[in-house]
Amino acid sequence: MNKQISSTNNTYIRQLVQLKDKSRERKKTGLFLIEGEREISLAIKGGYEIETILFYSELFSMAQLNKLTSTPINTIAVSKEVYQKLAYRDTTEGVLAVAKSKAHNVNALAFKTETPLILVAEAPEKPGNIGALLRTADAANVDAVIIANPKTDLYNPNIIRSSVGCVFTKHIALGNTTEVIQFLKAKNIRIYCAALQASVHYHTQDFTKPTAIIVGTEATGLSEEWLNNSNQNIIIPMQGEIDSMNVSVAAGILIFEAKRQRDFK
Amino acid sequence: MNKQISSTNNTYIRQLVQLKDKSRERKKTGLFLIEGEREISLAIKGGYEIETILFYSELFSMAQLNKLTSTPINTIAVSKEVYQKLAYRDTTEGVLAVAKSKAHNVNALAFKTETPLILVAEAPEKPGNIGALLRTADAANVDAVIIANPKTDLYNPNIIRSSVGCVFTKHIALGNTTEVIQFLKAKNIRIYCAALQASVHYHTQDFTKPTAIIVGTEATGLSEEWLNNSNQNIIIPMQGEIDSMNVSVAAGILIFEAKRQRDFK
Repeated sequence: MNKQISSTNNTYIRQLVQLKDKSRERKKTGLFLIEGEREISLAIKGGYEIETILFYSELFSMAQLNKLTSTPINTIAVSKEVYQKLAYRDTTEGVLAVAKSKAHNVNALAFKTETPLILVAEAPEKPGNIGALLRTADAANVDAVIIANPKTDLYNPNIIRSSVGCVFTKHIALGNTTEVIQFLKAKNIRIYCAALQASVHYHTQDFTKPTAIIVGTEATGLSEEWLNNSNQNIIIPMQGEIDSMNVSVAAGILIFEAKRQRDFK
Repeated sequence: MNKQISSTNNTYIRQLVQLKDKSRERKKTGLFLIEGEREISLAIKGGYEIETILFYSELFSMAQLNKLTSTPINTIAVSKEVYQKLAYRDTTEGVLAVAKSKAHNVNALAFKTETPLILVAEAPEKPGNIGALLRTADAANVDAVIIANPKTDLYNPNIIRSSVGCVFTKHIALGNTTEVIQFLKAKNIRIYCAALQASVHYHTQDFTKPTAIIVGTEATGLSEEWLNNSNQNIIIPMQGEIDSMNVSVAAGILIFEAKRQRDFK
């Protein structure tokens, strides 16, 4: 028999609403919400510890619940009203998990290869862009994604959603720009900044060595600190009327050129 | 002295609201609205005929208006209320144009090169995705973008916005899949479908010949008709947990591989 909660005024449910809405609350408690079967599966596969699963039985069955995880997890059946209060999406799947966040310390990153390929994004602002970057990073199976000077926490519901759960599949580290640069230099990883200044066309470079590709925001580009520590600035030749590109498209082009050069190994 | 309209109940203004909101109205009248200085400039540069410019003088000055076009255009000063009624964006620039739509007949496409590079998108649904595809197409300066079986008209305000005006900078054609395939075959343009079935890795192919790269939607992929007429299906190797990629990122990777092979000429 599952525990049941039907009132949106329940203290625990009100705490979970805070987790959904407030980055500060996620940081304070070390917990966050995951919505959707696929996303929860990817989080479990990615080694995230699930504290509780909440489900609305008219949308999500006990059979589905049992398939989701082989280890016993605390489950709570909730009413439609409670589910809607906690759900972030328009299209609802009927299942939510409360999970424990990870540390994401950049200095804890370890690589299985001597020639890692790393995507670094400096201060990306829009959760949708971060999600798209994480999807690209997953597809390319890069060795790590590093977010330098993050503007948002990783467990923002919109990042989880727009990454289609890829936020759980990759090695992701967060850190300030100074410590990320120090980390890359200490590991002898070449720094390629996507930037206009003193840049060469990206496809002329050899990305088969240990490589970090650094992208900034569309609006402001990369900070001076990155540019001062760049081994080589690279640019995608722009031959149209418009001089900017969506950051996730640009990152996809650069990362997959590196993958091509590595013959997708 | 400009003509002035201050009432949102004005008949002409009410017609323009219809143009903004209704694809049917745009089709019936052959007119559409363009918002923003940059977008209007790109439309003028792209040969679009501007019928009228509406501006809210507290946001957009006469000096700016005179800079926008050298040919005399019918201008109307509008009140804040009228401007807000017509504007689509949150951040407003204070200027709107009523423009005449173009035909976009696929059989009218002509190329300046013997080895055109063409991006085809079948039935893209989200205006934001179409906008992103058009931005990528602009950056790569492809010879044409063709939308097969369009689900939306090209002058949807959200397409204009998300393309940052790139909808006006490229040769864009619309047509049903059958006529687009006939056109490509008649011009001896090789058809590369981005599809899983019987596909080879994209980077093994020679895209220096006349090339059309065809992308479908993330949800349903390409129709049988495209697959039956494909010269070669191509795939971006996916090495992560997730088996799909944002369509504009995928198109960017494929189109820029073709550009790289052509040495960006």
